[in-house]
Amino acid sequence: MSSCNMTVPELIKRKRDGEAHSDAEIKRLVAAIVSKEAQPEQIGAWLMAAYIRGLSKEETISLTREMMNSGDVLPKWPSHWTVVDKHSTGGVGDKVSLVLAPALAACGVKVPMISGRGLAHTGGTLDKLEAIPGFCVDMETSRMREVLESVGCCIVGQTQSLVPADKAMYAIRDVTSTVDSLGLITGSIISKKAAESINTLVLDVKTGNAAFMKDRGQAKKLAEMMVDVGNGLGIHTGAIVSTMDCPLGRAVGHALEVAEAVRSLQNNGPSDFVDLVVETGGIILFLSEKAASEEEGRQKMRNVLKDGTALAKFRDMAVAQKVADDVATRLCDASNDPLEVMQSKANKTELKCPKSGFVASIEAMKCARAVHALGGGRNKSGEAIDLAVGLQLAVTIGDKVEQGQTWVTVYHSQPELPDAIRTQLQEALTIDSSQPTVASRIVETITRPKQN
Amino acid sequence: MSSCNMTVPELIKRKRDGEAHSDAEIKRLVAAIVSKEAQPEQIGAWLMAAYIRGLSKEETISLTREMMNSGDVLPKWPSHWTVVDKHSTGGVGDKVSLVLAPALAACGVKVPMISGRGLAHTGGTLDKLEAIPGFCVDMETSRMREVLESVGCCIVGQTQSLVPADKAMYAIRDVTSTVDSLGLITGSIISKKAAESINTLVLDVKTGNAAFMKDRGQAKKLAEMMVDVGNGLGIHTGAIVSTMDCPLGRAVGHALEVAEAVRSLQNNGPSDFVDLVVETGGIILFLSEKAASEEEGRQKMRNVLKDGTALAKFRDMAVAQKVADDVATRLCDASNDPLEVMQSKANKTELKCPKSGFVASIEAMKCARAVHALGGGRNKSGEAIDLAVGLQLAVTIGDKVEQGQTWVTVYHSQPELPDAIRTQLQEALTIDSSQPTVASRIVETITRPKQN
Repeated sequence: MSSCNMTVPELIKRKRDGEAHSDAEIKRLVAAIVSKEAQPEQIGAWLMAAYIRGLSKEETISLTREMMNSGDVLPKWPSHWTVVDKHSTGGVGDKVSLVLAPALAACGVKVPMISGRGLAHTGGTLDKLEAIPGFCVDMETSRMREVLESVGCCIVGQTQSLVPADKAMYAIRDVTSTVDSLGLITGSIISKKAAESINTLVLDVKTGNAAFMKDRGQAKKLAEMMVDVGNGLGIHTGAIVSTMDCPLGRAVGHALEVAEAVRSLQNNGPSDFVDLVVETGGIILFLSEKAASEEEGRQKMRNVLKDGTALAKFRDMAVAQKVADDVATRLCDASNDPLEVMQSKANKTELKCPKSGFVASIEAMKCARAVHALGGGRNKSGEAIDLAVGLQLAVTIGDKVEQGQTWVTVYHSQPELPDAIRTQLQEALTIDSSQPTVASRIVETITRPKQN
Repeated sequence: MSSCNMTVPELIKRKRDGEAHSDAEIKRLVAAIVSKEAQPEQIGAWLMAAYIRGLSKEETISLTREMMNSGDVLPKWPSHWTVVDKHSTGGVGDKVSLVLAPALAACGVKVPMISGRGLAHTGGTLDKLEAIPGFCVDMETSRMREVLESVGCCIVGQTQSLVPADKAMYAIRDVTSTVDSLGLITGSIISKKAAESINTLVLDVKTGNAAFMKDRGQAKKLAEMMVDVGNGLGIHTGAIVSTMDCPLGRAVGHALEVAEAVRSLQNNGPSDFVDLVVETGGIILFLSEKAASEEEGRQKMRNVLKDGTALAKFRDMAVAQKVADDVATRLCDASNDPLEVMQSKANKTELKCPKSGFVASIEAMKCARAVHALGGGRNKSGEAIDLAVGLQLAVTIGDKVEQGQTWVTVYHSQPELPDAIRTQLQEALTIDSSQPTVASRIVETITRPKQN
């Protein structure tokens, strides 16, 4: 790659005028952002130009690579390992990682999952895991390798030096209305996953009322862009477009979601949630050449959920991440209530169906806002949250219900459930007189193999 | 006007998506910029969105009004005064203000001219005036009123509190490649002039190699936008589009330009320069209803340049701005060399025509760069500059020249003229074998009267 001597204003001008950046220009730009040579107003102006003019697939591959290389990249893993991960654009009740990582480890692949915390209406995987007493999400790279060797998976937080270019850009995108740009989203997501030095990646792009991408067409475009860019960086990449209109599974809230994940690993999870875990894992195993077809991959996933090997991996992962041996064992024992093992304490209030009929919708966004209002969400990063609060849904879309029947149990820390939250939640539920058609959450899968 | 409660990211999003801002939104935005509620990255992003999506005439009128009102506005002048000004987008050798202001004062109108300093390749009117010993460009508003009453004109620097919104925006435009946007340029220029509480304004928009607007069509568009916006703010506004390919007049450099201005006031100026002064003044007098036609306006201008009344006003203005009485008198006495009165000291080197023929072009940009290299220009604001250096052209476009004839005298502070500057200057001159057609500098005038 020839080097680029352009000034920052010259780089901005190129994108302002709708021209395509060369690899060298992107390298120069990312270096200027990380070194702070580029001032905030210049980054803001470039981001807006990139938002309006767009970034091509080639520019996004280059941006993603340079972002990845702006910080620490996990060392090359042993060549006989198949190292995989997934990323979801964020949904309500999405505890896929908690089940998928140990299930994949049980299938013989390695999962060095670097995850995040919750902000605004979506919960964070790290926060959920911390509902388990003792669970530690900090891990040195050397220890990570040991855990992958012995257990096969871990779920950890990112270090300060993971993709600093993304940190610098994201803070500015957040306040300049330049978050929802396909190229910028792709760069942000894929650079962090690519820094894990993985072989295979599957993206779960959510679409619907409670998703970042409301529009299904836009979600598909983002999925395609991420698949292209992941493959462009040499990672076998696939994607799922799935709906996010009602919560995934039946639990929303940190401890409640861990409990649902544990029950799913005990082969006792809600079908919409388990289906998504199986689908995601199936694609990963297929793309990793650990299964001859997606169906064979799905079958392997179903087997490890059924035979207890995924549950055992979850137990071992918890122990490797500093959960006491007996706590981990009791948490995984199907004769115990996971919430009791986690010592998760909250008051419970049951809300009733106002009329008889069929559940037509349970609005995920309203559920998420209620959990946030209960103290289970952050307004800004670093805030403490209440891991015990949340919702346990008793019904799901299409269920026949009678007036007065409980549809949700609210877990709250207040002595009484505040009326405003009660009202908000009742508005989340729609009951129709006729039975609705229940569509699959999975709208589309993209498994274009990497082109060599 | 209804008030606007949008957040800054919401305001940015509107322009990002190509929507038109309401008056209330622009008011909110400018207030956020001035109060520093809007962060630099947000201003950079909005500026880029405004650059790419454009600002309508209505948005620009609103932006200009809010920018003007962001700081001090000169108090209403006595209603029997006709208060006027001009602005040029900047050229090489452009000393129009030095002659125009006293000539207009001699025609009975008031000129409270707030001017600027030079940066990059264009010289600044204030810097030029400071080549006159004792000339002071600082003036309180109360004193300004006295000088306008007694003399009729003054040329002063801007206070810290003139249009702070422009200062905040310009500093960011400068580093984000968002300078050359019609709406933003218009807001920046007209807001400062409108803050002078004037009745009439004429803009001189330069086009050509050494102009900010290289393209004639773009220059015309900017002129039309500024006329519309000036009129929209209740100011009788006109515009001239004039070429800036070779220097205006025959002098480039601070003291040299003052000398040329003085000679022009002595009815002994170069015709291309005097024509532009007369045209600008003619339009101002016509738009101010001090002349029944532009031609009558031009005739009045020619008269005051011929009969010495403009020169007398220049002398009085200099004295009002703290130049010693005898210095001002000697400077204006046609029997003295203005450079000697100014005690401007430099070494002189004559450059010769390399062949015989006709002067086809003298590139203004190369002349300006040479003067800059001689020490007569700033790289950043606040730098000291050498007011004595510059160029005195002996020839102009279309002149027949012989090989070995002097075409320019270079005024420099070095004992010998550096070879690099000599070479640069010789490259500015083109001599053709056939006589070129000499076009008028004035491409177009716009004198659409204000619609009531």
